[in-house]
Amino acid sequence: VGAWTRADAERADAADPLAGCRARFELDPSLIYLDGNSLGPLPTGVAARLQQLVSEEWGRGLVRSWNQAGWVDLAERVGAKLARLVGAAESEVVVADSTSVNLYKALGAALAAAGPGDVLTDDGNFPTDLYIAEAAARQFGGRRVRRVPRAELLGAIRPGTALVTTTHVDYRSGHLLDLAAVTEAAHRVGALAVWDLCHSVGAVPIDLSAAGADLAVGCTYKYLNGGPGSPAFVYVAGRHRDLRSPVSGWFGHEDTFAFGPEYRPAAGAARFQAGTPPILAVAALEVAMDVFADIDMSQVRAKSAALGELLISLAEERCREHGIGLASPRDAASRGSHVSLTHPDAYEIVQALAAAGVIVDSRPPDLIRFGLGPLYTRFVDVWDAIQVLGEVLESGRHVASAHSTRHVVP
Amino acid sequence: VGAWTRADAERADAADPLAGCRARFELDPSLIYLDGNSLGPLPTGVAARLQQLVSEEWGRGLVRSWNQAGWVDLAERVGAKLARLVGAAESEVVVADSTSVNLYKALGAALAAAGPGDVLTDDGNFPTDLYIAEAAARQFGGRRVRRVPRAELLGAIRPGTALVTTTHVDYRSGHLLDLAAVTEAAHRVGALAVWDLCHSVGAVPIDLSAAGADLAVGCTYKYLNGGPGSPAFVYVAGRHRDLRSPVSGWFGHEDTFAFGPEYRPAAGAARFQAGTPPILAVAALEVAMDVFADIDMSQVRAKSAALGELLISLAEERCREHGIGLASPRDAASRGSHVSLTHPDAYEIVQALAAAGVIVDSRPPDLIRFGLGPLYTRFVDVWDAIQVLGEVLESGRHVASAHSTRHVVP
Repeated sequence: VGAWTRADAERADAADPLAGCRARFELDPSLIYLDGNSLGPLPTGVAARLQQLVSEEWGRGLVRSWNQAGWVDLAERVGAKLARLVGAAESEVVVADSTSVNLYKALGAALAAAGPGDVLTDDGNFPTDLYIAEAAARQFGGRRVRRVPRAELLGAIRPGTALVTTTHVDYRSGHLLDLAAVTEAAHRVGALAVWDLCHSVGAVPIDLSAAGADLAVGCTYKYLNGGPGSPAFVYVAGRHRDLRSPVSGWFGHEDTFAFGPEYRPAAGAARFQAGTPPILAVAALEVAMDVFADIDMSQVRAKSAALGELLISLAEERCREHGIGLASPRDAASRGSHVSLTHPDAYEIVQALAAAGVIVDSRPPDLIRFGLGPLYTRFVDVWDAIQVLGEVLESGRHVASAHSTRHVVP
Repeated sequence: VGAWTRADAERADAADPLAGCRARFELDPSLIYLDGNSLGPLPTGVAARLQQLVSEEWGRGLVRSWNQAGWVDLAERVGAKLARLVGAAESEVVVADSTSVNLYKALGAALAAAGPGDVLTDDGNFPTDLYIAEAAARQFGGRRVRRVPRAELLGAIRPGTALVTTTHVDYRSGHLLDLAAVTEAAHRVGALAVWDLCHSVGAVPIDLSAAGADLAVGCTYKYLNGGPGSPAFVYVAGRHRDLRSPVSGWFGHEDTFAFGPEYRPAAGAARFQAGTPPILAVAALEVAMDVFADIDMSQVRAKSAALGELLISLAEERCREHGIGLASPRDAASRGSHVSLTHPDAYEIVQALAAAGVIVDSRPPDLIRFGLGPLYTRFVDVWDAIQVLGEVLESGRHVASAHSTRHVVP
């Protein structure tokens, strides 16, 4: 696609089977939004649902809405809707807490049950995952965390490895790990694998059942468009019915409202709930999940790959002479749904792009990340964004912001 | 007040310095809502704030709102607003997670630092607190949990007690424990005290600093009116700067967005955050906290006591012959802001009251709980509710619902 003109991009949009999905979001037509890998855009219907929830269910229904409006099992129902996107049975997924807390629960549960041995992760794993892995390894068995380069992870799984944990898609490079192969290698040495799906769920087809996965967690505010800080999820394979969340709160009890004095875990992933779920946030997420109800994830994946290929080829054609490099795998099969370019002035370039209405983000030290949300990103958006990038680099106008205070976003 | 007529109640409302606060809530005039100890009513302004947040900050601002709309430290700002209500410095309180998760973090932090010894609690402590205490005791030092009757808690604190944890106001009886005395007794034997303020914060004046408290947690959906499942809070005394949350997530890092590979805890209670905060829910809570900005908590306490006294005296006068008993302390100084009556048909009576527009709740086996939210509950509400209770008992119409399916609410 190296020689694509804007008209080529327009033709690709016209032929896109997912083009109609763009109307499912409230998008500002003056922006090119390529940061849905950080915060997905607002699905149409969220605002109305929240108004109804707040004014009717909370305001008028009050406490009765726990039963009458179904709040009491809302987190399980939304988890069941999410299950399809990760290849899980409905009871294997629940919406709860944050990714950090869920990863802690998942690692704690797995390590409390595991034999002796290390925790293996990759040294480029997402920071909160590394922090939580260190804490859980120390607390559950006094274990060591071995950090190896991502490219060496598969080969580093060996006898003495009790658990492998990392991120399916790398938040910096966008590198997509072979979830099934890593899981299989872990099982071969008697280890469990715990996956972070934050940067893949909703953009990359995932089949946890086929991969024989053990546990997984993920956030819902990126490609699932659940809103800022929307609740995360936990997947627990049905066969792991002996694993226990270390945070045994009442919403994970088999009969929460019996108010019994002893903890008895619920069946399924529901037992990995802890406290009372944040109903406003879970309700907004439900609207976002309904956006995916009729979506064919293989179409999503194909479009994501095509958008990425276009971006890479245009960037190389238009921007290479300005010091732009590629940090993402060139092969679409090894790439998630964002593409990272490199430039020493990444932060300043991102500010200059934003001033021109192109929203992307930077990651230290030198990455410019382009998130390609296949449900709403058009081929012309990618084409236009790289045009603007080329203009910024040519004009050198990003240099002007070189001394401003840096604000990086989640 | 035993002989109060409805006109007396009306006069008390007319003289109530907090009467004007009722307008700060969206209340259905056809209901008498006495269940704010389970879910507080909707503060005026929440719906509008959420519309703005969703449509403008998320919809149009998108990821830029993390900085431009101040999402990034919203949970700390709302924690600072809450601090005044518990007698804490602003940096000693942060909004995060659920009560269950926060209690786990608080107990884990305290027990990891504590010497050998048991965890002491009362056997009527809230169920999730008991579940979490058992888990944390086991995980952090292989400790035993000693459960004693609430009335014996103070005397049961002895050498060999590493930590004391319980609920400031009992969710069933409404019994208010002397937080300062229990904390002092704990400190005398070298133990820490961890408090659950769920059933007191917003209704009972709390001075954690004066009490020399160590750690505390609480929910915000009862007397703080933050909405269903609104985020909880954690208090960590400033002097305990060595205590570390066991769930060391990135929002508790001193520089979250440096994306560094090693965890370094933030200063203050902010380090007890874990994952990305649920911005919709925290923003709704901020509106609810602003309701309290000019409130004198001693007026709240005085009105709460007066409402409770009225309820008890009317119930005894009107309902005693129908088998109604009192499960709450008669002395207002030992009572929080709800009153529990007893009756063998508690569940059915609560259903019959609801059918008559009086919303209260039941707790097994025989409690009828009346929550008295001093910011919006009127003396006539209490008078009318007891009238209806008397009518229900006289008519025996609650018996009709005796075989329906039971749904109890949080």
